[in-house]
Amino acid sequence: MKTLIKNSHILTMDDKRTEYSDGYLIIEDNAILEIGSYDQLVQKETEFDKVIDGDQTIAIPGMINTHTHIGMIPFRSLGDDCPDRLRRILFPLEIACMTKELAYHSGKYAIAEMQLAGITTFVDMYYFEDTLAQATDEMKSRAILGETVVDFPTCDTLIAHGGIDYAEKFIPKWLNHELITPAIAPHAPNTNDPEAIKEAAALAEKYGIPLIMHVAEMDYELNYFRKKYNTTPIGFLQSLKVLNPRFIAAHCIHLSDQDLQILKEEGVGVAHCIGANTKSAKGVARIKDMLELAIPVGLGTDGPSSGNTLDLFTQMKLTANFHKTTLHDRSVFPAKEIFAMATIEGAKVLNMANQIGSLEVGKRADIVLVETSSVNMFPIFDPYAALVYSANASNVQDVFINGTSVVRNKQLVNNNLSDLRSNLAAEMTDFSKKARELI
Amino acid sequence: MKTLIKNSHILTMDDKRTEYSDGYLIIEDNAILEIGSYDQLVQKETEFDKVIDGDQTIAIPGMINTHTHIGMIPFRSLGDDCPDRLRRILFPLEIACMTKELAYHSGKYAIAEMQLAGITTFVDMYYFEDTLAQATDEMKSRAILGETVVDFPTCDTLIAHGGIDYAEKFIPKWLNHELITPAIAPHAPNTNDPEAIKEAAALAEKYGIPLIMHVAEMDYELNYFRKKYNTTPIGFLQSLKVLNPRFIAAHCIHLSDQDLQILKEEGVGVAHCIGANTKSAKGVARIKDMLELAIPVGLGTDGPSSGNTLDLFTQMKLTANFHKTTLHDRSVFPAKEIFAMATIEGAKVLNMANQIGSLEVGKRADIVLVETSSVNMFPIFDPYAALVYSANASNVQDVFINGTSVVRNKQLVNNNLSDLRSNLAAEMTDFSKKARELI
Repeated sequence: MKTLIKNSHILTMDDKRTEYSDGYLIIEDNAILEIGSYDQLVQKETEFDKVIDGDQTIAIPGMINTHTHIGMIPFRSLGDDCPDRLRRILFPLEIACMTKELAYHSGKYAIAEMQLAGITTFVDMYYFEDTLAQATDEMKSRAILGETVVDFPTCDTLIAHGGIDYAEKFIPKWLNHELITPAIAPHAPNTNDPEAIKEAAALAEKYGIPLIMHVAEMDYELNYFRKKYNTTPIGFLQSLKVLNPRFIAAHCIHLSDQDLQILKEEGVGVAHCIGANTKSAKGVARIKDMLELAIPVGLGTDGPSSGNTLDLFTQMKLTANFHKTTLHDRSVFPAKEIFAMATIEGAKVLNMANQIGSLEVGKRADIVLVETSSVNMFPIFDPYAALVYSANASNVQDVFINGTSVVRNKQLVNNNLSDLRSNLAAEMTDFSKKARELI
Repeated sequence: MKTLIKNSHILTMDDKRTEYSDGYLIIEDNAILEIGSYDQLVQKETEFDKVIDGDQTIAIPGMINTHTHIGMIPFRSLGDDCPDRLRRILFPLEIACMTKELAYHSGKYAIAEMQLAGITTFVDMYYFEDTLAQATDEMKSRAILGETVVDFPTCDTLIAHGGIDYAEKFIPKWLNHELITPAIAPHAPNTNDPEAIKEAAALAEKYGIPLIMHVAEMDYELNYFRKKYNTTPIGFLQSLKVLNPRFIAAHCIHLSDQDLQILKEEGVGVAHCIGANTKSAKGVARIKDMLELAIPVGLGTDGPSSGNTLDLFTQMKLTANFHKTTLHDRSVFPAKEIFAMATIEGAKVLNMANQIGSLEVGKRADIVLVETSSVNMFPIFDPYAALVYSANASNVQDVFINGTSVVRNKQLVNNNLSDLRSNLAAEMTDFSKKARELI
């Protein structure tokens, strides 16, 4: 199966940031076979199984969402402005009403939302990850799926830290899947016993898989480690010997200079969730300092109740404006650098930069066409600026994951969105009733 | 001509913030004739000239963009991350390449973008405002159009402060237009001689029209007034006796406590342009303090080279996240309050709250239907939160201005977007050539 995409403005995001203003791409099976200027194309169009005219589009690498919770679509628009929403609304609702079926339908819907927004790879942390892996497999997205471990009984386990048992079964089952990487996700340093964190890390070590954790996100988390151990969350995790390049640290809002050095030394990657961090008034992470130390940083939407939409266009814009303002310098975090965080730098956080994150021959065919015919996309003197400052998710026209067309002309190819929604809505009856009691 | 809109979730934004979860609206000619719960509708559907089924929509008052520059579409994506872009790129390009024809086509395109984003009223500050009034009239939007006055020759005048002469002809010509209010717009306190500011204010006084100005936006503006007059820009303007309720002050980023008191005493309204202010790293205005003093505050996109897109959804999200983070409190600026700034509070800034800004019987029929069938709009526990945190411009389905349907099913009714674009592109040849030399 060979597909030609022609006449697109291609941003490869390779090391040289090569662009082709009138470019072509050839997809063979699941990989990129050729990429270049259209005038260099040798083969005849009739030799391809499919030809897509990319006129008035920008072709980009599939975007990488480094942190989300796909089971949480039901929580969207619920208590957004409520103080301590996590303990007042989210945890109680999850324990009372989250089921395997609800997580499954939420997962499929969330993946649809990401595909429609040009996200081809995501990192999830939630419960029922075996079920969410099934949803991901059906939706044909690329993902790292981390089963949550936390020090209280949850919707998918009756015992504290029961996620470890769950993960022990879940991980080997999905280990050799082409698109899915199973993982383990201790919720946060302060919501797990140190022994449980070490146990989770040992499991990740055994299988060579990612360890995902919320780190240095909460004020009370910082206070807890200062008082109890006279250290920081990062310092504490280092003392447990669980930091390494497979560790994906979400948030990292409150870091000391020493914390930054530790992240660098241990090779930890960071999932920066600016929308969630700032909507909840938690603060702005020291991303410029991280980038100067060559710590890999990607962008994350966080869950749909925190970042609200599962698209990185919103996050890119917020990243630009927050860091420019915090640093009092409009020239820092130029659009090209922010777009890199949404693509190739995100791939580095996931240790997948050899496969995804840029459009290069031999890499997986995770490709997005963003149309420039909509009103917000003219004129374009700088395509990176157009993507970061002007585009929104609705400009995504075509999406390929691993060579498979999942979005064509802004519609899901293999799924019907209104079916996904009505299936989810049907599962939400109890949840919605309980939710309305809480708010 | 009578139109019925039915089955919509209506957010009236009246004083009580009345909502109708299954509501109807009747438009007669240019006004709202009835509004209420659908089960209270007396007339038969066959009695209407047109019936719009608002199923899966939220009906809201047309949004009000309190500050923009509609002639500046050609500048979009040009030097976004460039320090001192105003003097290095914008001013030189404007003087060299901005023509009446270019402003006209840019204006029409910009108005189309706003209509498609649910903005029914805007406040403009630019050159060639007589031509832009013609564009606004053709596009059937509601607007306050302010001719710029500045202390150097510009694209539409050969002399410093020539905008005053221009305005003297422009204002009486459009004074009795149903949708257009002409105005005068001294560029900033530090870019005009004090005498010119007073002259502009006298002209505004004579006709009872708005005076629009960028105020307290730039660091060097603050320094200038501190050094030369030992005061602030606001203090200086008060000393000139030009502040009053017809004054629309854009930006107001850097205000002292005394400045806030002056704004309150003089009844000045503020156009808050969070996107432009933070992308350019200028800072976050003290909006919470303004609201506590009951100073009217609306939202503005600023020009398409500063705020990039001419929609208020982007601005609402940025407003929420920036103010919550600056004040370290996720509960401040709840979605409902931010949505009010985009509608009824914006109308107050313009002294037009008796006509627009809320859906009430007798007010002008400026109405927007936002669809909730797209992937980002489910579930909705709080429609205000859905509008502020989840929606984007592409969710706007129908727009009525003064009773006229200008957008239907996400398409312009009376114009063809690709024609508007190709007309603008055709006028941009010289501009684009010069622009590429500057960046």
